[in-house]
Amino acid sequence: MKAVRVHAYQQDPTIDDIPEPELRGPLDVIVKIGGAGVCRTDLHIVNGDWADIQNPDLPYVIGHENAGWVHAVGDAVTNVAVGDTVILHPQPSCGLCLSCRSGRDMQCTGDAFFPGLSNNDGGMAEYLRTTARACVKLNPDTNPADVAALADAGITAYHAVRKSIPLLYPGTSAVVIGAGGLGHIAIQCLSALTATKIIVVDKNPAALDLAKQIGADETVLADGRQIQAVQDITGGGATVVFDFVAEQGVELEAWQMVGPAGYLFTLGYGGEFRAPTLDFVAGEKNVIGNIVGTYNDLAELMVLAQDGKVTLHTAQYPLDRALDALHDLDAGKVRGRAILVP
Amino acid sequence: MKAVRVHAYQQDPTIDDIPEPELRGPLDVIVKIGGAGVCRTDLHIVNGDWADIQNPDLPYVIGHENAGWVHAVGDAVTNVAVGDTVILHPQPSCGLCLSCRSGRDMQCTGDAFFPGLSNNDGGMAEYLRTTARACVKLNPDTNPADVAALADAGITAYHAVRKSIPLLYPGTSAVVIGAGGLGHIAIQCLSALTATKIIVVDKNPAALDLAKQIGADETVLADGRQIQAVQDITGGGATVVFDFVAEQGVELEAWQMVGPAGYLFTLGYGGEFRAPTLDFVAGEKNVIGNIVGTYNDLAELMVLAQDGKVTLHTAQYPLDRALDALHDLDAGKVRGRAILVP
Amino acid sequence: MKAVRVHAYQQDPTIDDIPEPELRGPLDVIVKIGGAGVCRTDLHIVNGDWADIQNPDLPYVIGHENAGWVHAVGDAVTNVAVGDTVILHPQPSCGLCLSCRSGRDMQCTGDAFFPGLSNNDGGMAEYLRTTARACVKLNPDTNPADVAALADAGITAYHAVRKSIPLLYPGTSAVVIGAGGLGHIAIQCLSALTATKIIVVDKNPAALDLAKQIGADETVLADGRQIQAVQDITGGGATVVFDFVAEQGVELEAWQMVGPAGYLFTLGYGGEFRAPTLDFVAGEKNVIGNIVGTYNDLAELMVLAQDGKVTLHTAQYPLDRALDALHDLDAGKVRGRAILVP
Amino acid sequence: MKAVRVHAYQQDPTIDDIPEPELRGPLDVIVKIGGAGVCRTDLHIVNGDWADIQNPDLPYVIGHENAGWVHAVGDAVTNVAVGDTVILHPQPSCGLCLSCRSGRDMQCTGDAFFPGLSNNDGGMAEYLRTTARACVKLNPDTNPADVAALADAGITAYHAVRKSIPLLYPGTSAVVIGAGGLGHIAIQCLSALTATKIIVVDKNPAALDLAKQIGADETVLADGRQIQAVQDITGGGATVVFDFVAEQGVELEAWQMVGPAGYLFTLGYGGEFRAPTLDFVAGEKNVIGNIVGTYNDLAELMVLAQDGKVTLHTAQYPLDRALDALHDLDAGKVRGRAILVP
Repeated sequence: MKAVRVHAYQQDPTIDDIPEPELRGPLDVIVKIGGAGVCRTDLHIVNGDWADIQNPDLPYVIGHENAGWVHAVGDAVTNVAVGDTVILHPQPSCGLCLSCRSGRDMQCTGDAFFPGLSNNDGGMAEYLRTTARACVKLNPDTNPADVAALADAGITAYHAVRKSIPLLYPGTSAVVIGAGGLGHIAIQCLSALTATKIIVVDKNPAALDLAKQIGADETVLADGRQIQAVQDITGGGATVVFDFVAEQGVELEAWQMVGPAGYLFTLGYGGEFRAPTLDFVAGEKNVIGNIVGTYNDLAELMVLAQDGKVTLHTAQYPLDRALDALHDLDAGKVRGRAILVP
Repeated sequence: MKAVRVHAYQQDPTIDDIPEPELRGPLDVIVKIGGAGVCRTDLHIVNGDWADIQNPDLPYVIGHENAGWVHAVGDAVTNVAVGDTVILHPQPSCGLCLSCRSGRDMQCTGDAFFPGLSNNDGGMAEYLRTTARACVKLNPDTNPADVAALADAGITAYHAVRKSIPLLYPGTSAVVIGAGGLGHIAIQCLSALTATKIIVVDKNPAALDLAKQIGADETVLADGRQIQAVQDITGGGATVVFDFVAEQGVELEAWQMVGPAGYLFTLGYGGEFRAPTLDFVAGEKNVIGNIVGTYNDLAELMVLAQDGKVTLHTAQYPLDRALDALHDLDAGKVRGRAILVP
Repeated sequence: MKAVRVHAYQQDPTIDDIPEPELRGPLDVIVKIGGAGVCRTDLHIVNGDWADIQNPDLPYVIGHENAGWVHAVGDAVTNVAVGDTVILHPQPSCGLCLSCRSGRDMQCTGDAFFPGLSNNDGGMAEYLRTTARACVKLNPDTNPADVAALADAGITAYHAVRKSIPLLYPGTSAVVIGAGGLGHIAIQCLSALTATKIIVVDKNPAALDLAKQIGADETVLADGRQIQAVQDITGGGATVVFDFVAEQGVELEAWQMVGPAGYLFTLGYGGEFRAPTLDFVAGEKNVIGNIVGTYNDLAELMVLAQDGKVTLHTAQYPLDRALDALHDLDAGKVRGRAILVP
Repeated sequence: MKAVRVHAYQQDPTIDDIPEPELRGPLDVIVKIGGAGVCRTDLHIVNGDWADIQNPDLPYVIGHENAGWVHAVGDAVTNVAVGDTVILHPQPSCGLCLSCRSGRDMQCTGDAFFPGLSNNDGGMAEYLRTTARACVKLNPDTNPADVAALADAGITAYHAVRKSIPLLYPGTSAVVIGAGGLGHIAIQCLSALTATKIIVVDKNPAALDLAKQIGADETVLADGRQIQAVQDITGGGATVVFDFVAEQGVELEAWQMVGPAGYLFTLGYGGEFRAPTLDFVAGEKNVIGNIVGTYNDLAELMVLAQDGKVTLHTAQYPLDRALDALHDLDAGKVRGRAILVP
């Protein structure tokens, strides 16, 4: 089959002809890929930024945001059958450790893996090996390419928003910093699941226009006066600030947008957060971490998607043109999410 | 192997010589039984009370409260190995449905089963077939017979107490009705996990004496004046009432012991609960259901047990004398929990 | 001033000329009434149904659902000033007991009162005495008559829905039984605050039509097959059932619409709830009580109302025609909520 | 009356003879002081460290940790009467804003004040003016000097521990950094309210010995290897770390002791917290702020204290010797908490 493989860091991947993956264990599932999202993390991988953390054997196939159709199943698989349309949680987990047993998939202490990131082939290919625990079954008529980006970008935004719901009752305010792919999903989730005032901050006026259309109550151009603008709109700081950037100083601005006893939800990375410990005491302010989401988060997000409450602009590229997709993403030319299709 | 089997309802089970169970699936585990609790539910099963609900093919082996050592494991089992000491969650669950994925094992909508109750052989035998998802690994030096009763009686009491923790902050009060096996565990769990005032109600003065020793702050003899006594101690009703009886009118008394905006946790069964709907409105009172517990509940309870914070009186009987154990239980002659040992 | 007073039970109230209320304590507030809702509870009061519970000295002024403008304030009032537009929580609370201190106004154990129900004059009059703790300040241009019904009917529905939010994540289902005043607000609140599937049950097809327009996903005519219909739509029972009727057997039907580990929220009253205690155990089902709501519930509901997310049909009557309003309500002729205006 | 007043920063306070405070408003309460705690914050005040934040008119009376007997009450006070024994929440709050109405006293947006810190005389005197909303009534036979330190040090530790309870189920671990006054209370509260493994870190071996006696399961000497020691004991980091130091680099060490998806509760101040934003994402770790506690926190803590579950070593000084107490505290000579008595 065709697959997009990294052979060496800081070099373009190549599209290789390799054997199809095979079932190895009784819970394994082989999925025929119908859509594979192209994520900024893929650029980081190609660049070698993740080499120290995950250190896969090269060459390997990238692509961690996948949806498609079940092609083969192991003996112990009971939740999906050959032919089912599925979206895939990015991290198949063990199902047996205390974390898995309480629904905290990303904290799995067993034999979880992360195809396309850990030492396992990913989904920028015709077929992918995953496990039953990663498969969320979809309505049969769903086009995998339409939803694939929800498998990673979507679940991450949804997970954070879902955690924030108890904080965001009517009369509160939520700031979304960074109206890109994740931010757009966060805005739609906030709109579907809360009645908080949604304030979106971005340096791109076009992104703010789109934000308005999908649920933002207020938009703030990040022109240097954004902290004061948020303070003014919220009357002294927001209840929750979602920081999808979290680098280049934005992580420090975000903290200043948080009101008394408020929460900073960090989702982006790259920067260094700094604050006097007095900020946590005098203001009783908090910082909340967020990593991807749970299997059930993904299942719930698919309910929103299939109800039309969350949608995502996508730009489709044939698998053969994967390099174009990666280059376009790197050049800032992709509107919405780039998706590789068979 | 030897096994205690029901051949016909309303007849004593017999101790038969049957083949050992075998692995059927990749997640299966065969456990050599070290202790099998004898539960009032076993009497109900023998009596045929459960026939309509579970309807197993007769003959079958009873015993749903088990601990022992791992004897054999299927290919996909990663959490336990042959020789491990384990206590068994009574209901192996699928691990793939949304309930399992959020840690709500008892609401499994997949292929869960309940050995010794559903159409599957139970643990009053030398060996039992269960799955990896039921096995909680213990310290190697734990004697299975000492903890087996926590697998069902214990987990049920713990589950309810754990759910009540947010309600039972200092200054509140909790009533435990029925100071038998489950009640004793509940008292110890309340004492370990909260600083609420623990009030124990029973018609047996000896049970109340024991309750005092294991954490009860107040005891009330159920002599007909128990509702008023609880009202007096609590100043108008308790925050939470745990009803381990819930039949013969106790379920109605329990409701009258609940204070404004309080909670009745129902754990016993057999009776009919009745209340004017006005009680739910004018008093904002609540009734909370409870069925067994989750895998993690059992794992957490074992932490308490291994720290010496929860203990249970047991009366051990050799497997050969299983009928004596059942008869003694039926005759009210068992102090603590009867446990069958190899 | 003019006021609608009950002189004897089971007789029509009369419109009397009585002295205006006066400030008695430093936290007292006199409100010029701009809108006073006419509630089914008023019919019950006139009928004497509440005499044993509240036992006010007759004659007294009814009306417990009020909004208007601040007319005078006591020395210690700091949250509102003369001229402010306000909606009034129905039960001014003490602010000093542990319940008040944790935001549970309706469980106030201090000197709370309930004008128009307890032994205190209500709001079917030109002026009402309440306290600072009951006043929720509104945008100055709000017409009190437009929102008065939210003070009791609205807050009650909102309170229950707000409590249910953690249960009603995407993929769950909620049933609203009784699409009257409270039910309509509940539907709108569910729609604003959750993405659950909203199923509305009523015996009136016109009420179901309206329900569809304001957020119901599914409607079920209560024609005798409603339990099965809900079971079919939900695949075995709803996550939460809100019972706004809770009499004449509906309270028993409601229970049968609740799915495994689901919740019955009781808001109506008049009937008797009955269930085998086994239902609470085998199904882990729950019943949740609900009484009015907190001050903050009302404040939050007003945010929804002022954002246009919750609206209520009203039929206005001049205070002089209060008897017509009461008679129309009794005769089932009021569409939406009857509101008395100055 | 005698009172300890600050006349100029960086100079010793003096003991002056000043008029007794008088009732100003209907909710005011005058308390005869029975015990006034001496806190490190008092040293900071004297040093001028708080001048920019609170800026009181000098001279003024310090002392924000008070208990005593009610001496006079305003017209609207209903929760306490002259002669009652009381402990005082340090911040009388308005009772009318949305924060107060939900029980979040420290976030009061109304006319809250903080005697002895804000521009209001504190409790190192014979009498203090506070309000009804600060008074927690005690058993009449309580000696105020025995509990005064719980009014600020105690409530702060309790507040943080109470927030952490849902995180600290059996099998988890909690680290307490800094076994001083607050730390000791935290250890006792953790022991009373959870079954978590309690690990105490301090650089003073004597403090660790005492920690062992009051509930610590493990102690770790802060000798430079403390991070690794906590990692070893917890198997990769604690569930919750309470940092009562939060300066001089401890705030950074504390973060390294937090396990995956764990929480750092910050209570000390003075330092600067720093962490790569990736820590919040890859590890899903969190930082939780904590400021004093609520009125109900204090009431609950008094239940623990009156049950003997929380005690505090105190060193009593007559009010006349207040300067000795301050100097001893500054010199590290006070064991437990210094308390001024009449």
